[in-house]
Amino acid sequence: MSKNNVQIFDTTLRDGEQVPGCKLNTDQKVRIAQRLDGLGVDVIEAGFPVSSPGDFQSVVEISKMVQNATVCGLTRAVENDIKVAADALKHAVKPRIHTGIGTSDSHIKHKFKASREQIIERAFKAVSYAKSFVEDVEFYAEDAGRTDNDYLARVCEAAIKAGATVLNIPDTTGYCLPSEYGAKIKYLKENVKGIDKAILSVHCHNDLGLATANSIEGVINGARQIECTINGIGERAGNTALEEVVMVLKQHPYLDLDTNIDTRQLFGISQLVSDSMGIYTQPNKAIVGANAFAHSSGIHQDGVIKNRATYEIIDPKDVGVTESAIVLTARSGRAALAYRAKIVGYELTKLQLDVVYSKFLEFADRKKEIKDDDIHQIIEKSHLYREIISA
Amino acid sequence: MSKNNVQIFDTTLRDGEQVPGCKLNTDQKVRIAQRLDGLGVDVIEAGFPVSSPGDFQSVVEISKMVQNATVCGLTRAVENDIKVAADALKHAVKPRIHTGIGTSDSHIKHKFKASREQIIERAFKAVSYAKSFVEDVEFYAEDAGRTDNDYLARVCEAAIKAGATVLNIPDTTGYCLPSEYGAKIKYLKENVKGIDKAILSVHCHNDLGLATANSIEGVINGARQIECTINGIGERAGNTALEEVVMVLKQHPYLDLDTNIDTRQLFGISQLVSDSMGIYTQPNKAIVGANAFAHSSGIHQDGVIKNRATYEIIDPKDVGVTESAIVLTARSGRAALAYRAKIVGYELTKLQLDVVYSKFLEFADRKKEIKDDDIHQIIEKSHLYREIISA
Repeated sequence: MSKNNVQIFDTTLRDGEQVPGCKLNTDQKVRIAQRLDGLGVDVIEAGFPVSSPGDFQSVVEISKMVQNATVCGLTRAVENDIKVAADALKHAVKPRIHTGIGTSDSHIKHKFKASREQIIERAFKAVSYAKSFVEDVEFYAEDAGRTDNDYLARVCEAAIKAGATVLNIPDTTGYCLPSEYGAKIKYLKENVKGIDKAILSVHCHNDLGLATANSIEGVINGARQIECTINGIGERAGNTALEEVVMVLKQHPYLDLDTNIDTRQLFGISQLVSDSMGIYTQPNKAIVGANAFAHSSGIHQDGVIKNRATYEIIDPKDVGVTESAIVLTARSGRAALAYRAKIVGYELTKLQLDVVYSKFLEFADRKKEIKDDDIHQIIEKSHLYREIISA
Repeated sequence: MSKNNVQIFDTTLRDGEQVPGCKLNTDQKVRIAQRLDGLGVDVIEAGFPVSSPGDFQSVVEISKMVQNATVCGLTRAVENDIKVAADALKHAVKPRIHTGIGTSDSHIKHKFKASREQIIERAFKAVSYAKSFVEDVEFYAEDAGRTDNDYLARVCEAAIKAGATVLNIPDTTGYCLPSEYGAKIKYLKENVKGIDKAILSVHCHNDLGLATANSIEGVINGARQIECTINGIGERAGNTALEEVVMVLKQHPYLDLDTNIDTRQLFGISQLVSDSMGIYTQPNKAIVGANAFAHSSGIHQDGVIKNRATYEIIDPKDVGVTESAIVLTARSGRAALAYRAKIVGYELTKLQLDVVYSKFLEFADRKKEIKDDDIHQIIEKSHLYREIISA
């Protein structure tokens, strides 16, 4: 792994699956894991083995099947959780145990009714115990987004001392602003003793719509793993969307940060996850929404027809979408109409276009979307049918 | 308006409506405008009057109806567009004309086939002409996100000289990173002569999932207007979501930036726009998605039951959602089951809960979501029915 390689840790099957009413069965999980492995993710978090017999079985089957990625199982900082996870992961080529504990005052006080020192001790013990089963142990400091940096650094030091290979700094409630979250990662990178022995990982939630930006600020400031899900699915407003962070890094080469993702598979895997879970992405979802590459306004259509780069920063083919659909509506301009008319078979002169366009607008004001069939009708109603030379 | 008040410019009815297949009729637009006026937005961009007779009529009717907000119409830097917009806005209490032109090299070269100096001249003329009709003229520098800052500053100076009251700096293609976009606004704030005569406005697109973060970085760096849409709707991956930027500012009081929005109306207006346009928000949409306040994992449910602030940074009532739905699935823990069982009428002892919980998990592994009826069944199957004291 080069210094500027950002590991993609996919948690679609664990944190992503925590969506009310969207549980996947083992077969579905194995199929998704296979596609994630092909997509090039570095780590697949396959489940939370102690949480239910179904989850345990899914982690076992995924561990047997996955060939390239690390397979990871979640635990609390509890011995039995860790033992069960190690058992579920025993067939994995590259197993990782992901253990941790809440570190914010809100978690320490209300959830654990413990002291800060007791939490550090439990963190150290959990990582040490996990290390007795596997080499690769990731530690999470839950609610790190609301944990003060000085204490968080001490927790991280204890985890590194116990042998943690990865330190996950989750913004569990999706509260941080990008500048705050970036500063937190920078602080840890600069202040945690022994930080070079571990990778910092970002795990952001989207409650305020900032998960992608926070993750990117995290890697700009020294993190080298992003935890994310396909389509940004997950509890509440979901997790960081894998397709968004991967494309942000790809579209900003000057950041000099790459991933191992084959982006041409993004659209296909988005649809598989969406269909399997029954959670449809909204049409305006970035990168993978049905309209992500569709242009309807006249000004934009004119621009795209003249030169794709005017309005499109991503070539749809790069994410597995075969062409950007130009949809005609009452917002469409003359250029879009002429372009589509030509595809349908009519080469319009400027004068003809003026007549056809005004008919088109009347038509489009009544109808939401103009299909190719409608274009034939509009041209017929313009009484220009015989004049127009079929292109 | 105080120095730290951020104006909310809603463009749901103009840029938001540029969604393939989702045209609204005049009645629908007027109804949405009425709700936006009640929500407390400062500006309603009602349409692009020259683009179609239907759009013209909508701007006329909205101008007649709106009492509080400024009503704005979009134009290109073209005399006829501006004249038609002024005509459509003539009944508005506070009319604004929004005119502008593309300023990036890609736009200048491919779209206008013009020189940089010619673009500045056209910008100046358009603003001057709009000023002959209304006092309040907003200028947009299309594709400002990809326009070099030095040239952009000169375009802004020309617009201010011509009388522009607001300068809109759109990231038209959704390309900028938050740090870049923030730096652009800061540069303009510090380098444009006469900048104190105008307000800087941010207008971001979500192609890479960064629209909310970019808008927030913009206001942190000196902008005082955010252009956005309900549910983040709009062409391609859409615009900045109004509900997200408003809640980011509300949840981070230390930024000392407020809006005039009554946030308790956010959920209701989100549903109105969604129903009117037939574009449903995904369940994990921040702030207004069906799951935005739902918790299904055991760890989280336990936390929320102990103290809402453990996992919820926003009180659902603040955005008009009456309660956070706790949904039971195979990810749910004992605490959530006990909590729901109590609501349904069973007070479980710890030992009883152990038995019922294992039955619950078997059940939940087969069924996606556990309803209250299922709880009665599970308890019956646990052969504990008679033992359990009804709570």
